[in-house]
Amino acid sequence: MTILLSVTGFDPMRWLAALQQAGSERAIVLEPKDSTDPSIEYAVVWKQPPGLLENLPNLKAIFSLGAGVDHILADKRLPDVPVARIVADDLSGRMSEYVVWRVLDHFRRGRAYRTQQAQKIWHERMQPAAREITVGIMGFGELGRDAADKLRALGFRVAGWGRSPKSAEGVEMFAGIDGLGPFLATTDILVVLLPLTEATRGIIDAKLLSRLKRDTPLGGPVLINAGRGGLQNEAAILDALERDTLMEASLDVFTVEPLPATSPLWTHPRVFVTPHVAASSDPDALAPTIMRQIAAHGRGETLQHLVDRSAGY
Amino acid sequence: MTILLSVTGFDPMRWLAALQQAGSERAIVLEPKDSTDPSIEYAVVWKQPPGLLENLPNLKAIFSLGAGVDHILADKRLPDVPVARIVADDLSGRMSEYVVWRVLDHFRRGRAYRTQQAQKIWHERMQPAAREITVGIMGFGELGRDAADKLRALGFRVAGWGRSPKSAEGVEMFAGIDGLGPFLATTDILVVLLPLTEATRGIIDAKLLSRLKRDTPLGGPVLINAGRGGLQNEAAILDALERDTLMEASLDVFTVEPLPATSPLWTHPRVFVTPHVAASSDPDALAPTIMRQIAAHGRGETLQHLVDRSAGY
Ligand SMILES: NC(=O)c1ccc[n+]([C@@H]2O[C@H](COP(=O)([O-])OP(=O)(O)OC[C@H]3O[C@@H](n4cnc5c(N)ncnc54)[C@H](OP(=O)(O)O)[C@@H]3O)[C@@H](O)[C@H]2O)c1
Ligand SMILES: NC(=O)c1ccc[n+]([C@@H]2O[C@H](COP(=O)([O-])OP(=O)(O)OC[C@H]3O[C@@H](n4cnc5c(N)ncnc54)[C@H](OP(=O)(O)O)[C@@H]3O)[C@@H](O)[C@H]2O)c1
Repeated sequence: MTILLSVTGFDPMRWLAALQQAGSERAIVLEPKDSTDPSIEYAVVWKQPPGLLENLPNLKAIFSLGAGVDHILADKRLPDVPVARIVADDLSGRMSEYVVWRVLDHFRRGRAYRTQQAQKIWHERMQPAAREITVGIMGFGELGRDAADKLRALGFRVAGWGRSPKSAEGVEMFAGIDGLGPFLATTDILVVLLPLTEATRGIIDAKLLSRLKRDTPLGGPVLINAGRGGLQNEAAILDALERDTLMEASLDVFTVEPLPATSPLWTHPRVFVTPHVAASSDPDALAPTIMRQIAAHGRGETLQHLVDRSAGY
Repeated sequence: MTILLSVTGFDPMRWLAALQQAGSERAIVLEPKDSTDPSIEYAVVWKQPPGLLENLPNLKAIFSLGAGVDHILADKRLPDVPVARIVADDLSGRMSEYVVWRVLDHFRRGRAYRTQQAQKIWHERMQPAAREITVGIMGFGELGRDAADKLRALGFRVAGWGRSPKSAEGVEMFAGIDGLGPFLATTDILVVLLPLTEATRGIIDAKLLSRLKRDTPLGGPVLINAGRGGLQNEAAILDALERDTLMEASLDVFTVEPLPATSPLWTHPRVFVTPHVAASSDPDALAPTIMRQIAAHGRGETLQHLVDRSAGY
């Protein structure tokens, strides 16, 4: 009865310690004894090497270390077992901090005031009220809903866009391809919290950016992407910034990560770059939720937060 | 039956238009006919010239254009009539935006990530959870309470300090001089929303800064002052930054405004300067509340949000 832990891009030892701390009765290994190790029943992974899980005969379920599963499903040799992702207050809370932080920094004109400070200029900028601004959240799932609540508490209007029609208190909801145009037309600050799937790859392209409302109370549209880099066309974003069809952007995720030093996004004065840290998975906070799922599954209970593999999220 | 409007530092014409729009039945003048003009019953002011109101024989009340009244009470020749200030959702909302914005920017390491971006460095910073951080709000009145609610919604712990013992749901409250030490010792991020009075002038001094908790989850204490510049000793703040007993500061208010070009605060890498814009009074949003007070007083009702002139706020 072994758990396989495979982590790329984060420190595996921190996860190992946290998982052991959270459920000491099961053995956790960082490498399978061999590629057909029969003792391995569960895999806890972030970006596992392709094929790693293919031939484990007794694998019952795969757990993502985060909210996203694109890094798991990218493996073309993934066995047909349930894949679960993380839904947790700690993670949603961190993402909402990032979203509120970036919305406020654009809304309260952080860039302009930092520039003025560098030039010792004392000058008040025109400042709309939060109720005059609509934050449009593209991808209105677990993270989008939490961010919406916190933005509404600050007085912002919120619109949401998802795949299937849904409702949310105090939020103007849009769905599907038909809803995208009206959603973008009502949005002053666009926050992207979509998963990366076949349907969403490259969705933030020149066409989408050209449909954003130009005449906003802030003087132009703002883009915030904390979903995945694969959602965005970075050349289109740079082009929209140059044409002033996009005013400012905060990007936490990129097509290639780490963002290459050659990318003009690093130095664009109206782009704020963070190194994929919007909502990092905290091992100590999240390991217990994974170990609880494994324990419950061992008792015959059904797994929660399972991914629809055909939809890709 | 005339209202006198006297505005220094903002555009009087915008206020005149908004007040007229909000209550067209009363005459509003920008200058008294003479210093003893008997038609003037109400004065609506921001930083009136000293003595302006002294000899108006029928003056019944003075209204501040904002939450603070230090600019009114500074007039040593102020007549003994009630002074009312503004308490309004629009104003509290703007201040809470500023407070949450600045708390999040320090908490989510905005300065470090901006520096890293300038150097094209892709590196994740240690990030505590909001629940590990206590934001201490010094001056827990109308604005402090609203900011506390919004910070709590984001998961921060909140402590409050006021003159008299009070309670607030989910907030650890401290009061008076005896409560100040324990309040500072529990605070990771200090937010100052005090009024400027004889008792509070210069309160943010070397002694207070030295009592802030050093060993915080962020690596050092943070100061955010959006109360009044007269509350702070700027040399002491700079000194604390140099000694690393203060990690970072966001200052919206200054001893002398506009902040002189000679001030080292402008260029200090760990100070964020805004030109007294944390919560600007929006004429369109606030003129109706003033005109409603005047109309109600005219009907014999009592005024709200009156200032205790002996306490100075
Ligand atoms: N930057 C970071 O640090 C970080 C951290 C954590 C997560 N993330 C990203 O955030 C993403 C969202 O997480 P979550 O927990 O909120 O996911 P979730 O609960 O599964 O929500 C996904 C949302 O996207 C919508 N969606 C999916 N495909 C769509 C399509 N083709 N067209 C329109 N809408 C579509 C879904 O619509 P329905 O409601 O109709 O299903 C849902 O509203 C993750 O997948 C991950 O990529 C980033
Ligand atoms: N930067 C800007 O753009 C901006 C905009 C608006 C306002 N402001 C400033 O914000 C201030 C606060 O506004 P507000 O509406 O929240 O005022 P408020 O409702 O009168 O609250 C003042 C708070 O300060 C406390 N206090 C006063 N004197 C004190 C003392 N000596 N020791 C300890 N606590 C003391 C009061 O304690 P009690 O609760 O015990 O009375 C109360 O909690 C204004 O006076 C103004 O200076 C700045």
